[in-house]
Amino acid sequence: MTELRVIQHYHINSFTFVSGSIIPIDVAYTVIEPSSNPNGKTALIPTCYGGRINDTFAFPKSLASHRVIVVAMLGNGESSSPSTTPSFPASLDYRDVVRSQYMLCQHLGIHSLDAVIGFSMGGQQAYYWAAMYPEYVSHSVVICGSAKTSGHNIAFLEGPKSALINSIDYADGTYKEKGIKPVRGLRAFERAYRAWLHSPGWYREELWRKSEGHSSVAENVDAAQDGSLDWDPEDLLVLARMWQAGDIGVLSDDGKYETTLAGIKMKVLVMPGKTDQYFRYETSCSDF
Amino acid sequence: MTELRVIQHYHINSFTFVSGSIIPIDVAYTVIEPSSNPNGKTALIPTCYGGRINDTFAFPKSLASHRVIVVAMLGNGESSSPSTTPSFPASLDYRDVVRSQYMLCQHLGIHSLDAVIGFSMGGQQAYYWAAMYPEYVSHSVVICGSAKTSGHNIAFLEGPKSALINSIDYADGTYKEKGIKPVRGLRAFERAYRAWLHSPGWYREELWRKSEGHSSVAENVDAAQDGSLDWDPEDLLVLARMWQAGDIGVLSDDGKYETTLAGIKMKVLVMPGKTDQYFRYETSCSDF
Repeated sequence: MTELRVIQHYHINSFTFVSGSIIPIDVAYTVIEPSSNPNGKTALIPTCYGGRINDTFAFPKSLASHRVIVVAMLGNGESSSPSTTPSFPASLDYRDVVRSQYMLCQHLGIHSLDAVIGFSMGGQQAYYWAAMYPEYVSHSVVICGSAKTSGHNIAFLEGPKSALINSIDYADGTYKEKGIKPVRGLRAFERAYRAWLHSPGWYREELWRKSEGHSSVAENVDAAQDGSLDWDPEDLLVLARMWQAGDIGVLSDDGKYETTLAGIKMKVLVMPGKTDQYFRYETSCSDF
Repeated sequence: MTELRVIQHYHINSFTFVSGSIIPIDVAYTVIEPSSNPNGKTALIPTCYGGRINDTFAFPKSLASHRVIVVAMLGNGESSSPSTTPSFPASLDYRDVVRSQYMLCQHLGIHSLDAVIGFSMGGQQAYYWAAMYPEYVSHSVVICGSAKTSGHNIAFLEGPKSALINSIDYADGTYKEKGIKPVRGLRAFERAYRAWLHSPGWYREELWRKSEGHSSVAENVDAAQDGSLDWDPEDLLVLARMWQAGDIGVLSDDGKYETTLAGIKMKVLVMPGKTDQYFRYETSCSDF
């Protein structure tokens, strides 16, 4: 990314969440126009956990002739979130997130999407997109995502969540009244999350030397601990809960994600990580 | 285990730690005599992280004719530890732990050990034993242990450590003066540690149903969160720091664990876990 993208907001006066809440929301996004787009194709890329519009990954060459919309999922602090909207529901659902993105696309006058492309929680959104708007989207690309959040994934998210919720300066949520940022809680969150991000091999080959210029694991961990300081704790928590509850089975009558998967007819590219700790082949693809 | 073992204590009047501290210590142990021991062999089993003498694993048939000594590593709350000894050094070293066990064996009149057998941190002790007392021990059995703690292992231990240290009721260590147990901190520690204990496959196959009788991952995580409530926070922390610093390279002139390994002549059985998250083959055995 050489330049910051200009972030726009689409305002929806009355948005009904799965939880029943009805509030006005804003959906943050940016539109990147290619130098030429002979086929008039549009791709949509939603943000991942911890992701903002401007650090959402660089695009492959295959998107060079696409108009690309990068959209902030609800809860990420750019679109409506607990941090921006006091009445934001405590329970957010991927269906809310994806529907808000669909409404944005309608608002922008887009007749169809050639592809929805997502990484991690973005990958889960791409799964939901495929199941919710099959007539509207042609391709779905799931990079390190799962149709149903695995039990291991649910369990490990409890670590960073618990570190934050029980931290001394999160103070059971009273940090807000006190007007302080729970720095220690956010650092504990990051330290509890950190070792899940890279593979054992990444550490074994000491890639923190090359990729991050550190001289020890301890230095690497310390350097990373500020990684969530620009995040609101409630935003991190509402998204973690949504991630844990991720399951496209809610879109089928029998509640089974296998049924929803079986109903998807479009081309879906699923790319698990060979050495990833929680989005391996077995987790991402075992039901195809 | 059908019956509780009687725990004995060996008192050492003046024990010099690697850190330089000199204090009296107690080494807790139990001796299990076989019904017959024709060869007069003795095996020693040190405790692992989170382990007490009475929950140290059942013995294989191969030990049926051995006298078995189960010994509590320093810091576990049974042998001298921060919780029992206010002057206990903040920095504990595997060399201290293993030397205290060697002194115990001398005290018991044991002329040689047929085997030292350890799991996890117990496995690291078995590595240190092999390097420190090669004339005294015949075999070393390392089950899910490493000669040098891997970078990934160092990094992930920061999660539970940080959750505890930054917790609201650990209160920067003042819980002691207040006479309270930091229950929330200990639960956050456990929740941050939990997902490292079982493999992704354990969750994928939902073995928590069969092995623990739970009906959901959330129930499993909640049920496990009290797992460290009978531990003193400082004991957990001093052991985690020792684990992170584990490296038999300190026993070689050049400081390299490979050199120490090369000097071990006894038979060492190393058993990594095929699906373990941090004691796989690459971590336990890559240097043989």
